Amino acid sequence: MEQILSELSIDTPGEGFIDITSAIKNWIANNNIRKGILVLFTKHTSCSLTINENADPRVLKDLSSYMKALVPEEGVKPISGKGDSISYTHDDEGVDDMPAHIRTTLTCSSLSLSINERELVLGTWQAIYLWEHRYSRHTRQLCLHAIGEVQEVNPSLTSESNSKLITRTNASKLNEVVLQRHNPTAWAEDGGNETNVDLLIDRIHDLTSEVNSMNRKGET
Amino acid sequence: MEQILSELSIDTPGEGFIDITSAIKNWIANNNIRKGILVLFTKHTSCSLTINENADPRVLKDLSSYMKALVPEEGVKPISGKGDSISYTHDDEGVDDMPAHIRTTLTCSSLSLSINERELVLGTWQAIYLWEHRYSRHTRQLCLHAIGEVQEVNPSLTSESNSKLITRTNASKLNEVVLQRHNPTAWAEDGGNETNVDLLIDRIHDLTSEVNSMNRKGET
Amino acid sequence: MEQILSELSIDTPGEGFIDITSAIKNWIANNNIRKGILVLFTKHTSCSLTINENADPRVLKDLSSYMKALVPEEGVKPISGKGDSISYTHDDEGVDDMPAHIRTTLTCSSLSLSINERELVLGTWQAIYLWEHRYSRHTRQLCLHAIGEVQEVNPSLTSESNSKLITRTNASKLNEVVLQRHNPTAWAEDGGNETNVDLLIDRIHDLTSEVNSMNRKGET
Repeated sequence: MEQILSELSIDTPGEGFIDITSAIKNWIANNNIRKGILVLFTKHTSCSLTINENADPRVLKDLSSYMKALVPEEGVKPISGKGDSISYTHDDEGVDDMPAHIRTTLTCSSLSLSINERELVLGTWQAIYLWEHRYSRHTRQLCLHAIGEVQEVNPSLTSESNSKLITRTNASKLNEVVLQRHNPTAWAEDGGNETNVDLLIDRIHDLTSEVNSMNRKGET
Repeated sequence: MEQILSELSIDTPGEGFIDITSAIKNWIANNNIRKGILVLFTKHTSCSLTINENADPRVLKDLSSYMKALVPEEGVKPISGKGDSISYTHDDEGVDDMPAHIRTTLTCSSLSLSINERELVLGTWQAIYLWEHRYSRHTRQLCLHAIGEVQEVNPSLTSESNSKLITRTNASKLNEVVLQRHNPTAWAEDGGNETNVDLLIDRIHDLTSEVNSMNRKGET
Repeated sequence: MEQILSELSIDTPGEGFIDITSAIKNWIANNNIRKGILVLFTKHTSCSLTINENADPRVLKDLSSYMKALVPEEGVKPISGKGDSISYTHDDEGVDDMPAHIRTTLTCSSLSLSINERELVLGTWQAIYLWEHRYSRHTRQLCLHAIGEVQEVNPSLTSESNSKLITRTNASKLNEVVLQRHNPTAWAEDGGNETNVDLLIDRIHDLTSEVNSMNRKGET
């Protein structure tokens, strides 16, 4: 079980939907994630995430119109029909400022998804959208954080036929696989942080050296 | 740490709430999940997930009435009271088509939950509902994806009294436990994918064989 | 990869926003979580979670006013402007009872977040709020469930300079590190549950003892 955390920059042209499904799928493929949970998170309070139809563009048009009616620029009247109109008090950045905050709260800042067999799990008609609620262009930061199983990049390990050749009783072949996985500079690359599994692999290397050395002594 | 991903089919009788709490609890029990994070996800754009009261059925009745008033079939007028009425342009599948998409976006397509001590973590009054927004019957796909600790199925390992008998200094007992956990055909069953821990277990088996063999040589 | 699950009690003074960002950050620091996914969950059906601006208090004031207009105490009229007013049928606990349930469903009962480099991943302007929807004081239970990497508490392991001194080829140093990590009473503390990694560490200890003993025999 491993985890991968990245941040993608998404440029938005102003209010509307950016389909980020392909960007997410590419990220999964580039990081060789086989199976896991994926958390998406926007680092903003005036754009959000939503999952909706990927086929008819009129769905997005209607969603946008609906949201403008639900969270109008000019404030609200209680939808019971009773009571006075209310104007927003926070309008420092324009008429779209407070509506953008409200629209964010009515949708999602984070989404949890699944990855299975190297694919994002989605229904046939689903796409994932970053919904820009501000009127002007913005660059938005999207965090992608996966926890799960990552396929090794070594082709001999990814090939199904090869891995079936490696049996439990074949010690030298197994040793070879462990050696392939062992990266002597991994600690340095990881900022000096070692995991339990790293330590175990290292300890097994040392034990193997000792056993080999004792075997050689016994042979002489 | 392991992960389990399943898909449940949920039949809905049309608009309304399906309590899926028991189905989720059964899935946790059947998969022996002791502790972990659970992601629920619907693969649709016209039904959603929500958590609300499990006691008084009038809560669900009111939620349903409210949602119909908030996302009316016939379109919307800005709730500021200013501006024109808007009709939906996407209505291919009927008057409930676009409202169902909007209601989905205003609620949740995914939920993240906790499992602890083999139980779904929920408040006393909480139930998890699949909320069908279409008027006609549908079969909905719900993904359940857990990452966490799974209890071993071997009764000798799950028994608390037994596991307390196994001490660190008892090498043969420990070896027995490792052997019980070792499944020689696991690779084949897992589609040829081996984990780091699998490899480590295999390598320890090989080292043990070598040490045993050297011990036998020394005895002769 | 480890997991930590806690429950925090949050006192609310009635309707409004409680900034829980600091409480979450403290929990991450106290539990030494280096990197991972964090699920927040409220065990209630009349309060919720939302992420919004942390700077101008007028944002929270406007969010609150907006929500009162969107989910009025006295019921709703369809926002198309057509159709009759609807009153809530569930009002056992007062005029704020059913509105609180609806406001919960329109926001979030659970949020998924990221932890990286010992910090909660948040945008500059984001805070996490528990949103109390009831009018009177309440004590709310918030679940925090992280899965990820936990830093060891042993200072010699957390010191970057020390860990860089430990190289793969230094077997005795490595052994020392593994020994430091080995807690002979861990099983007892963990309620008798052993993990795969625990078992592997134990097995390596035993193998090491055997190899050492054989070395000593060889020397005599």
